[in-house]
Amino acid sequence: MFPENLLKQIQFIKEIDQIKYIQRRTKLFNSDRPENDAEHSWHLAMMAVVLSEYSNEPVDVLKVVKMVLIHDIVEIDAGDTFIYDTQKNHSNTEEELLAAKRIFGLLPKEQAEDFIAVWEEFEAGETHEAKFARAMDRLEPLLQNTSNDGGTWKEFDVSFEKVFQKKSIIKEGSDTIWNFAEQLLNESVEKGILKKEH
Amino acid sequence: MFPENLLKQIQFIKEIDQIKYIQRRTKLFNSDRPENDAEHSWHLAMMAVVLSEYSNEPVDVLKVVKMVLIHDIVEIDAGDTFIYDTQKNHSNTEEELLAAKRIFGLLPKEQAEDFIAVWEEFEAGETHEAKFARAMDRLEPLLQNTSNDGGTWKEFDVSFEKVFQKKSIIKEGSDTIWNFAEQLLNESVEKGILKKEH
Repeated sequence: MFPENLLKQIQFIKEIDQIKYIQRRTKLFNSDRPENDAEHSWHLAMMAVVLSEYSNEPVDVLKVVKMVLIHDIVEIDAGDTFIYDTQKNHSNTEEELLAAKRIFGLLPKEQAEDFIAVWEEFEAGETHEAKFARAMDRLEPLLQNTSNDGGTWKEFDVSFEKVFQKKSIIKEGSDTIWNFAEQLLNESVEKGILKKEH
Repeated sequence: MFPENLLKQIQFIKEIDQIKYIQRRTKLFNSDRPENDAEHSWHLAMMAVVLSEYSNEPVDVLKVVKMVLIHDIVEIDAGDTFIYDTQKNHSNTEEELLAAKRIFGLLPKEQAEDFIAVWEEFEAGETHEAKFARAMDRLEPLLQNTSNDGGTWKEFDVSFEKVFQKKSIIKEGSDTIWNFAEQLLNESVEKGILKKEH
């Protein structure tokens, strides 16, 4: 009556509900309520659609949107790693790869392979789409922290230099958005919500 | 240093953060925690990407994704209307149109017009993309309620006939998914989590 593939896809759709319980360190705008991964992913997808004109190179917007919609699904198994964590490197860990294989592996074979490939492309950050998607992923918490009197920068005592270094990959996706981000960072120092190292 | 349009777009991106506070009646899967509009919209976007092959007609998947990402943004001003509310009709109210004009109107003119048009297309439900997007919007709470022992059907005493009528528009977007949904509804009656009228 309906294809077996559909049952696999429904199983996947139910499984990924769990990212709604994964809390990030960053808080909502003008708020002390932590954001969860589903909210974060929705916001990045909206940003990708709204800001795609500023990508340094023409991009397949649907692919960028797919990347940001799925980029944190691996955290269902691997958990959220704070970007300024000094103990644990965020980049494509073995744990995340296992998670990608298990969770996307719930999908029919061809679709599973496609989702794993899109996730790996995002993590590698080399294609135009991945660069723009990663720029969105860096921009959202920057907007949040500046709206929250420094937010996680203050809370975890992160320096201007560390933030600048992490945020500078925005430039790979969009020079225009980087110009804007750089000004926000400089203004944050002037306002005293982000401190330079001495 | 950066275009004035970008500042308008950033303003919009900040404004729409508010949908993370709008609670729906439906609960997360196997849960009593209400879902908010951002989580709901993320889930529909994932479903649209995963299930697009079942659309009755070929669809522009990016357009479907845009529709589901933005379809509830008007609720920032107009609030969430429960689909089985007997007092208030959900369909494209004047209040929602005003909300669309105010919120999408934060964007640069051309983009604002595009977003309003996409939202109106979703609400009208006449194009292939709108039909498929609306099918996703009906399918998610069906999956949630069946995972929650009847969920809002039980909580608000909604009959099989009312649910069947609301869900049957899934068929306009996808016969395959409707076959699956119909079976879920019949199973729900057998399990006693959805009651027929007498």
